[in-house]
Amino acid sequence: LIQTTAYEHGGNIDQVAKRFKLDLRAILDFSSNINPLGIPKPLQEMFLSNLDRLTRYPDPEYRTLRESIARYLNVPPSKIIPGNGASEIIFLLLSTLKPKNLLLCAPTFAEYENAAQAAAVNVRYLTLSEDNEYQLEMTKLIAILEKVDCILLCNPNNPTSTLVAPEELRGLLEQTKRKRVNVIIDESFIELTLAGNRNSMVPWLESYENLFIIRSFTKIFAIPGLRLGYGLGAPQYIEKMNRNKLPWSVNAMASIVGDYLFQSHPFFEKTSQWLVTEKSWLFEELQKIVSVKAFPPQSNFILVKIVSSQLTTTELQNKMAANGVLIRNAANFRSLNEQFFRVAVKDRVSNEHLIRLLRKELGE
Amino acid sequence: LIQTTAYEHGGNIDQVAKRFKLDLRAILDFSSNINPLGIPKPLQEMFLSNLDRLTRYPDPEYRTLRESIARYLNVPPSKIIPGNGASEIIFLLLSTLKPKNLLLCAPTFAEYENAAQAAAVNVRYLTLSEDNEYQLEMTKLIAILEKVDCILLCNPNNPTSTLVAPEELRGLLEQTKRKRVNVIIDESFIELTLAGNRNSMVPWLESYENLFIIRSFTKIFAIPGLRLGYGLGAPQYIEKMNRNKLPWSVNAMASIVGDYLFQSHPFFEKTSQWLVTEKSWLFEELQKIVSVKAFPPQSNFILVKIVSSQLTTTELQNKMAANGVLIRNAANFRSLNEQFFRVAVKDRVSNEHLIRLLRKELGE
Repeated sequence: LIQTTAYEHGGNIDQVAKRFKLDLRAILDFSSNINPLGIPKPLQEMFLSNLDRLTRYPDPEYRTLRESIARYLNVPPSKIIPGNGASEIIFLLLSTLKPKNLLLCAPTFAEYENAAQAAAVNVRYLTLSEDNEYQLEMTKLIAILEKVDCILLCNPNNPTSTLVAPEELRGLLEQTKRKRVNVIIDESFIELTLAGNRNSMVPWLESYENLFIIRSFTKIFAIPGLRLGYGLGAPQYIEKMNRNKLPWSVNAMASIVGDYLFQSHPFFEKTSQWLVTEKSWLFEELQKIVSVKAFPPQSNFILVKIVSSQLTTTELQNKMAANGVLIRNAANFRSLNEQFFRVAVKDRVSNEHLIRLLRKELGE
Repeated sequence: LIQTTAYEHGGNIDQVAKRFKLDLRAILDFSSNINPLGIPKPLQEMFLSNLDRLTRYPDPEYRTLRESIARYLNVPPSKIIPGNGASEIIFLLLSTLKPKNLLLCAPTFAEYENAAQAAAVNVRYLTLSEDNEYQLEMTKLIAILEKVDCILLCNPNNPTSTLVAPEELRGLLEQTKRKRVNVIIDESFIELTLAGNRNSMVPWLESYENLFIIRSFTKIFAIPGLRLGYGLGAPQYIEKMNRNKLPWSVNAMASIVGDYLFQSHPFFEKTSQWLVTEKSWLFEELQKIVSVKAFPPQSNFILVKIVSSQLTTTELQNKMAANGVLIRNAANFRSLNEQFFRVAVKDRVSNEHLIRLLRKELGE
């Protein structure tokens, strides 16, 4: 009925559970990139004690939520628009900015292409090079600027887990400002990089009106089911996006996250401690498996290529799934193929289990 | 910043609380039309014990939810599309059916006009007559059929609380089928009429492919903050709507409502008992106030006109709000004016309080 298939996105574990007759709670899901620390305890408690918020319509202007995000990132509320996940923000940005030619990297998050199609926007691709470990080559990007009026970068990039430094992006903003090209940066995973918000371009919103930023609480607070993202940009564009937006698309439960932000510091600390240890551990262990190549990760997920095995990714994925471990098939990312998959970094016990099962299925 | 003002929709009590410096929990909100029995207890418990669903993306095809609704209404799941409130379904229907000329009644729910504007659909109005107590005059509607290719009816209608009987609507479907006019019926309040689902046109979906129905759990289960509506129509249209839809726009918490449906019978019973008593009581009491005229209600809200008082609705509304009682200003409904307001039916104690305060402010 619906176009999305089980394997198109990560995290669709209901279907996998049914297919392989597994208990939902016994599945180890490495296909979805969310924080394995789970929903912060204080946030859970706030959900439980604020159920009565569901009996009222959300504030259509989401004032309290916007003020909380404003304090969290030190930007005025007028530059913020909450959305039903980052997805709604992506669609709103494209349908509001109406670019003629949009530049996307390949591989990158597939929803950009879907949103461009829905908004009837022409897309050009800058293919990231495997030889260069999928790092964004800024000179190549700048060379292509004449041909587009908008760029959408995912930073850190999904599924490559590569990161462009703020200094480099500032150079890009200078160039694009002169050439009247808009720059959209999707920072959905930024809190899950080692430097966290210090990698964000949010502070540059003040200097560049051609800069737009997509953010999300989905990954860091492990709440993909709640649907809460937000967009940042110059107030006149935010206003236009609001006019194009569905009323109340962000539910009342989601807006509670804003109240939690003020006490989220310890959780960010804990997340950072986990990430610094487990990201390197998992990457090193993957490097020891000779039949795959793992690309250096800058965020909480790792792109992996099968280099010497008879198995395609789909075959490997099915073997793993039959054992209750989900990996993300990356074959449907533009410019990748049946040799690629993506795994999230989880806790040590889970990561060890992943490595063991990978070794077994790859015959090592 | 955003176009929606405090008084445009009912239920925006945060702003009123701030403006009149009232405690949010002390406000009696007659401006929002939700079931005063509140969220059903078993549903509340299901929310509390299923918080872990937030850590997973919703099933993009909402299979379980669609199957539950299918059983609830006895239609195949292929005819059902869940949405972020009825609002998303309205927008999706108009952007998918793409009518050239849409017929709306006046007065009716203002979001239809907004959705038509967003989808660049031309709107014609059939003005409901006050002399006729805002009953839909079917002969007038049929006379206008040549000029439109789509009709959107709210049944029961907001804010008039009038209801068109299924037999009458069937006649309309026969006429429109021949003339290739689509008919959309918004049944968001249908469970809050005395005959409940027996007033619904859902059984006629099988016979008429030009019939589309909008439904919502917002009113009956008192969950406007949760955002859960759904659309019904022929599978080929539902499929098209799915392709135009934001992914995961219905959150994981909302989809729990589907599981509750199987045990919702006692709650529907209780609701029905409350409605049958309190609707008549409030209507009769309003009729005793000489400076207003109340129109006969078929659902859980009543349209009222100030007929002999110096007060405009806005003035009355502000006086009531200053005393912690919110009524819905109905002046911004097309064809109504500063004499009209709408009140929801609540529990007896609250209803008595409303009547007392109305009498006082109207000087009776």
